[in-house]
Amino acid sequence: MSRKLYYFELNGLAESIRYMLHYSGLTFEDIRYDAKSWPIKEVKDSLPYGVLPVYEEGGRRLNQSIAIARYIASQTNLLPSDPWEQAVLDAAVLNINDFRLKVRAFIMETDKVKKEQMKAELLTETVDFYLSRIENELKANNGFFGGKLTWADFYFIGIIETTNVFIGIEIEKTYPTIVSLFNIIRSLPGVKEYIAARKPYVDNTIQ
Amino acid sequence: MSRKLYYFELNGLAESIRYMLHYSGLTFEDIRYDAKSWPIKEVKDSLPYGVLPVYEEGGRRLNQSIAIARYIASQTNLLPSDPWEQAVLDAAVLNINDFRLKVRAFIMETDKVKKEQMKAELLTETVDFYLSRIENELKANNGFFGGKLTWADFYFIGIIETTNVFIGIEIEKTYPTIVSLFNIIRSLPGVKEYIAARKPYVDNTIQ
Repeated sequence: MSRKLYYFELNGLAESIRYMLHYSGLTFEDIRYDAKSWPIKEVKDSLPYGVLPVYEEGGRRLNQSIAIARYIASQTNLLPSDPWEQAVLDAAVLNINDFRLKVRAFIMETDKVKKEQMKAELLTETVDFYLSRIENELKANNGFFGGKLTWADFYFIGIIETTNVFIGIEIEKTYPTIVSLFNIIRSLPGVKEYIAARKPYVDNTIQ
Repeated sequence: MSRKLYYFELNGLAESIRYMLHYSGLTFEDIRYDAKSWPIKEVKDSLPYGVLPVYEEGGRRLNQSIAIARYIASQTNLLPSDPWEQAVLDAAVLNINDFRLKVRAFIMETDKVKKEQMKAELLTETVDFYLSRIENELKANNGFFGGKLTWADFYFIGIIETTNVFIGIEIEKTYPTIVSLFNIIRSLPGVKEYIAARKPYVDNTIQ
């Protein structure tokens, strides 16, 4: 089956999906646009909501990174079968997404003074609010959100990595269980080789 | 099994969950706090991320409205079994959630001038951007997101209803397929009786 993932030359919302595909040995075309050339009108106009990532499989298209990641998980061993266990992971991913939206508000802010204030608030409050809760959740569940490796772990580490690119520090470093999960994901077969071969990502936000 | 839904005396993020529970005949305690008295410290401190809604079932708790709604759907006939069909609904719900976040930014804005600008942008651009796409998606799928009634339809109508309370107009009125879905949901057995019995919701944002 032909699979295509469309995104930018960024980790952002796509890297956890790429990790899962590489880990699961599902071959795919990793199509990347240069964020600096975006929007490319004919591409943007062809997308359901004008935004990336979009995943294509056998001619069918899906948008929304969380929907794509969960679908990939359903095709592998990264999604439990029990509905409550699935729901706990959905909630974990959506909690992480709330954190991501706060980071995104900082990235998108163009007023320099406000941006500095937002960065300070992120570093003194927001990061710890979320990461301390996640640290406890992981610790209580054998180091994973669902007691064993699932798509929520991939999604989380993908968001941590892209946040670090934009904030310029390793936000996870004082949370040992998160650091451990970070290292587990990055050492997985498929993921490890992919990381070794990829180019480093940089913050190319237009300031 | 004991079920409890904790939220405010608002439609907001909980009404679609309430609708699904009533429609499916799943009994639950509908626990509502007065938004004006929020935060109630001992309640807020007991919540996973300090926010509502939270759903409780047999002593287990779940946060995040989308995770809760999807879980309820999995316990009823409101979630298809095919993973791709599920993913299409996940994407629909997350697209609707993007729209909700834009409405929320308007609701939360405290600067009066900026708030007026945001309302104008919502009414002249954002509403049509999302609702025209959703209108087409519904039209192409027998009037529902997934070709027949699912949790995505409930979620969508819940967001439309709460948006209307805060914006003060019926944003769906020029989209006939959305109006039709709106009427279908509100006429469902269980939902109809619940709507007839509930108090009207009002915008109690502190301006």
